[in-house]
Amino acid sequence: MTEFATRALLPAGLRDILPPQAAHEADVVTRLMASFAAQGYERVKPPLIEFEESLLEGSGAAMSKHTFRVMDPVTQRMMGVRADMTPQVARIATTRLANARRPLRLSYAGQVLRVKGSQLRPERQFGQAGIELIGADSAAADAEVVILAAKALVDLGVGEVCVDLTLPSLVPEICSGLDEIDGLKDALDHKDVAAVAAVGGAIGPILCGLVEAAGPAVPALARLSAVPLSGNAAALRERLTAVVELVSSAAPELTLTIDPVEGRGFEYHTGPAFTIFARQSAAELGRGGRYQADGESAAGATLFMDTVLDVLPGPVAVRRIFLPFGTPFAEGQALRAEGWVTVAGLEKVADDRAESRRLACGHLLVAGGVIAA
Amino acid sequence: MTEFATRALLPAGLRDILPPQAAHEADVVTRLMASFAAQGYERVKPPLIEFEESLLEGSGAAMSKHTFRVMDPVTQRMMGVRADMTPQVARIATTRLANARRPLRLSYAGQVLRVKGSQLRPERQFGQAGIELIGADSAAADAEVVILAAKALVDLGVGEVCVDLTLPSLVPEICSGLDEIDGLKDALDHKDVAAVAAVGGAIGPILCGLVEAAGPAVPALARLSAVPLSGNAAALRERLTAVVELVSSAAPELTLTIDPVEGRGFEYHTGPAFTIFARQSAAELGRGGRYQADGESAAGATLFMDTVLDVLPGPVAVRRIFLPFGTPFAEGQALRAEGWVTVAGLEKVADDRAESRRLACGHLLVAGGVIAA
Repeated sequence: MTEFATRALLPAGLRDILPPQAAHEADVVTRLMASFAAQGYERVKPPLIEFEESLLEGSGAAMSKHTFRVMDPVTQRMMGVRADMTPQVARIATTRLANARRPLRLSYAGQVLRVKGSQLRPERQFGQAGIELIGADSAAADAEVVILAAKALVDLGVGEVCVDLTLPSLVPEICSGLDEIDGLKDALDHKDVAAVAAVGGAIGPILCGLVEAAGPAVPALARLSAVPLSGNAAALRERLTAVVELVSSAAPELTLTIDPVEGRGFEYHTGPAFTIFARQSAAELGRGGRYQADGESAAGATLFMDTVLDVLPGPVAVRRIFLPFGTPFAEGQALRAEGWVTVAGLEKVADDRAESRRLACGHLLVAGGVIAA
Repeated sequence: MTEFATRALLPAGLRDILPPQAAHEADVVTRLMASFAAQGYERVKPPLIEFEESLLEGSGAAMSKHTFRVMDPVTQRMMGVRADMTPQVARIATTRLANARRPLRLSYAGQVLRVKGSQLRPERQFGQAGIELIGADSAAADAEVVILAAKALVDLGVGEVCVDLTLPSLVPEICSGLDEIDGLKDALDHKDVAAVAAVGGAIGPILCGLVEAAGPAVPALARLSAVPLSGNAAALRERLTAVVELVSSAAPELTLTIDPVEGRGFEYHTGPAFTIFARQSAAELGRGGRYQADGESAAGATLFMDTVLDVLPGPVAVRRIFLPFGTPFAEGQALRAEGWVTVAGLEKVADDRAESRRLACGHLLVAGGVIAA
């Protein structure tokens, strides 16, 4: 390899974001955070690294094998580089902000690092932006989080935003007290009704009913209502139904689907959970749901900046104007106040107009004012 | 230690930034980047980690002992977590953007991590925001970088911004070809004129003249002009004089000082370099100067977000309004469009006004409109 190629080489899954994408990404994050702030979500900023045991506690445990470790030379203890910000925000809520009023609304945005990329997400570094609503356990709280995350994407310009709602604790609830049923999880994961019926025994019909209650929210909820559920399982269904109603009413532009048996990636969730997609892409834009944060019920949503940016229109081109060498600073300042991006000439050139074009400026400043380059 | 205290504990030099400071920091970075963008600086975003050898190459070598290392499980090669973004931006300029038009104006903002804090900066994680102007070698280029970095701080509201300009390559230039002079560096670092005279031999008088040419820029430059310099040393003085003139003329509100023998922390600089302070604080807000980026002459400036935030007025309080349980989503949206931060009630309460106050909302929405809480 040449020296150039060696120096330019980055580890797989890591990349330099160049102009104009880097500014666009930052702008999108700023707009998302402004949406969250407008509904009372206050930003926190946890550190990039912290002690391994606090980073990987509770819901953070799922991230253990994705987490880079480094030794802290000060304490000789192991630290982890965060692979997910959600457990950090839950830690802040239940320690430093333990005495803050509830419900506590927090937002966050930052970079996370993962040891290896996955097939779905080859990137090993990407941005997260999200919200956590801690200490409120109601359909209104679940719905607020779904609406805020999904509508923030609509407001950014994501074409058709789809939310797939699920109840990851429903199947475990129905199966609780039963012996483990061989092959059931596989059959449910594959939505294989025949297999579920074959292995499900006494609860087979109920589980088949749940598998068949997947799809666009309104007809699927009608099918779900016909499944004979009781106790906690019925309460979960009631909660999901209420959330769908609240979300549809506040944000009719969202496409809602439900999939009551889907639990993959939601191992820690205790109530309604969801995944957000855009119609034009298979990639997840975000996910979230209800979980327990150290004894408090919480609902959160995380958006993934890499996939969000993929489905957004690109950045708008800026209006660049060339200021010939020697232009007084105040003249540039006046143009910038009008919204121009100024590009100053740093030495005298023979042809200012040609120089403007070379520097990708559509305009230049001359004695008479602004002219096209 | 209690379980609570253990979980809340972060490694020394790392911290959680809480509301409202975290949002304030993000807002300040956004405004700085907007200042840079308005003068044609386009943002790049290098990754948090990259291969050790590319991270620590050239001017990056100074960061070696501050850099956390992790093994890349994919390639089995060592990677470093960046301790400084400047070498990354120089790498991007000279590899991926090698064919982009010159002068190349780039900006960046992000977090850096350091293995240990220093006495001056105990933080092991802090934000950097900066600019690089690559491929232009003139007083106008030097001045553009100083003005942009310092005026961005003025525009943020930093009280009195001071820029201390130096010529780190001047003493090495004057001493080049001479045998190493014992004790000279120490005497110069201490600005000890008597000691410089005692050990300086034939060049003692010149060096004493340089030490005495420190202080407020105008009188110090007058003293500097009387020192007998020739060749490259005279050219460096001429460059510094031109930079001071350009900066004073464009930004008369800045306090300019010079210190032509100061070289500490500027080991890689080849022309004018500078440190930015606020009058009310001893901490550096930023630094920068001219250096060689892989064969190209470049000038850059980096601002340190921790010290910048310390000297800024705090965030402005937001106007929070409580929306009683059941308020239609569209009513909240209308209030947000008017600039309100809305805080939705998630369950029915007996006294909405008391609930508003409990949730730190100065106002609440009632049937008749907005009222004070």
